[in-house]
Amino acid sequence: MNLFKHAETLAVGDSLSWEAVLAELPFNADGLLPAIAQQVDSGEVLMLAWMNRAAILETLSSGRVCYWSRSRQRLWRKGETSGHYQTLKELRIDCDGDTLLLLVDQQGPACHTGRRSCFYHTVQGDRVVMNSAPQNTA
Amino acid sequence: MNLFKHAETLAVGDSLSWEAVLAELPFNADGLLPAIAQQVDSGEVLMLAWMNRAAILETLSSGRVCYWSRSRQRLWRKGETSGHYQTLKELRIDCDGDTLLLLVDQQGPACHTGRRSCFYHTVQGDRVVMNSAPQNTA
Repeated sequence: MNLFKHAETLAVGDSLSWEAVLAELPFNADGLLPAIAQQVDSGEVLMLAWMNRAAILETLSSGRVCYWSRSRQRLWRKGETSGHYQTLKELRIDCDGDTLLLLVDQQGPACHTGRRSCFYHTVQGDRVVMNSAPQNTA
Repeated sequence: MNLFKHAETLAVGDSLSWEAVLAELPFNADGLLPAIAQQVDSGEVLMLAWMNRAAILETLSSGRVCYWSRSRQRLWRKGETSGHYQTLKELRIDCDGDTLLLLVDQQGPACHTGRRSCFYHTVQGDRVVMNSAPQNTA
């Protein structure tokens, strides 16, 4: 039986080996999984980016979030140029293992535009309205 | 200039035409975008699924969330068999248009396992611990 199918029947507090789960993560054809970053205290969803196996392992070992940049095709240590680090507080995996949820403490804005969250376009009827402004980080 | 690049410079409350934004959404090679569902009041991240253009339009017009099922290759009206509907409260789009955030009111569990959220596996050291149990929906 598939590991994730097996886990469906487990009780709260039951556990599996992380090594076994990691071996079963269904990475896509590019070797990636989507990872949602959520601010741990406020619950704000900050961004979605992608992780490969190496990014997951580095994030867990360093405690700072590292993604895989699809545009640059290399590991992307969030904050390495901006200083806007994400400290990992908890890593969760969804029911079938194909999405990650990172509970983080975000230093400054998560978005490259200087906004706290990347989700600053809100659909309202026939318009798309800007719901936030860049933070003043000077 | 790319529409999303242009929007980076807009102020809070400024807006774009939804029709124009929809035309520029960078769907992937399968015609899909990832969509994060977040419970609107609690902030809990419930699940991630995928939407094509038709799913987005149906969701906006009906007010009930409709995804694209990659396994079944058809529109997936969340709750159509389980009764666990998601009422759309707000649709947000990220900075470069390639991820959607759905603020929803989730009826019952979001997860097919009966758990409120799909993200019930928590990595703790060398173990992956179950952090929630199926809800009693009888």
